[in-house]
Amino acid sequence: MSADVATVEALNTELYDAIEAGDLDRLGVVWAAGPHAEAVTCVHPGWPVLRGRTAVLRSWAVIMANTAYLQFFITDVAVDVIGDAAVLTCAENILTGVGGPSDASADSLPGGRVVTTNLFRRTPEGWRLYLHHASPVLEPSDIEPGDIEDET
Amino acid sequence: MSADVATVEALNTELYDAIEAGDLDRLGVVWAAGPHAEAVTCVHPGWPVLRGRTAVLRSWAVIMANTAYLQFFITDVAVDVIGDAAVLTCAENILTGVGGPSDASADSLPGGRVVTTNLFRRTPEGWRLYLHHASPVLEPSDIEPGDIEDET
Repeated sequence: MSADVATVEALNTELYDAIEAGDLDRLGVVWAAGPHAEAVTCVHPGWPVLRGRTAVLRSWAVIMANTAYLQFFITDVAVDVIGDAAVLTCAENILTGVGGPSDASADSLPGGRVVTTNLFRRTPEGWRLYLHHASPVLEPSDIEPGDIEDET
Repeated sequence: MSADVATVEALNTELYDAIEAGDLDRLGVVWAAGPHAEAVTCVHPGWPVLRGRTAVLRSWAVIMANTAYLQFFITDVAVDVIGDAAVLTCAENILTGVGGPSDASADSLPGGRVVTTNLFRRTPEGWRLYLHHASPVLEPSDIEPGDIEDET
């Protein structure tokens, strides 16, 4: 594993840890700033595109303020580094509750499963999150996994 | 506008034109191949992640085979070139019908609105699509656009 891949994976972990902790300051460190502030882009599941660091961080503040309990189980992480850009895809298996962890039984997974593309870019301050695109996995497709399996 | 941005925008247009035309050969040219074939990634609205050129192109073949009429109105295009990677976000305003264009009245927009991240990378053959992540815009958020507007 290259050093860049390891760094990007660690930053991805920090992203979700910061959200779980409801820590907007830590989240602010993960996201790109400075010359990239206006171009940072975020799509929450089911949302339109948000652009600009201020709008993006504000949206996270609203989400964190309205969620008493939020836990991510991140799986299926894949990273590709393309020079000064790194694209990471993963699945977010989300456990949420309104009354704390004790409310979040296996029966109540309102967050459910989300698939995400996180695009990082190398900045003078190190790798930073530049684009986050998360989308809900809706009802199973008509297409069986076997039908679309890669044969190569 | 840089030459790279113009090229990437043209390739993005070709992507949607190829889908509208139901032309899998043209679609195959848009997507990265060769050493990148195994890593190409696609998320259709509401779907889990598909990885690998064969799986991705097969999914498009299935979608095109099951859609008699599919028209995209692409808006809100934004492109950032980061060395040999280019990230393009856009909104896909989709008009679909099962019986041809005459069925697709303004009242019937089952495709609806989708937001998409298309990641291109520079290859020896030119820019190619490397990742496509499309997600449905679901019911309006509780958050009014004014609340999350970027103040910077």
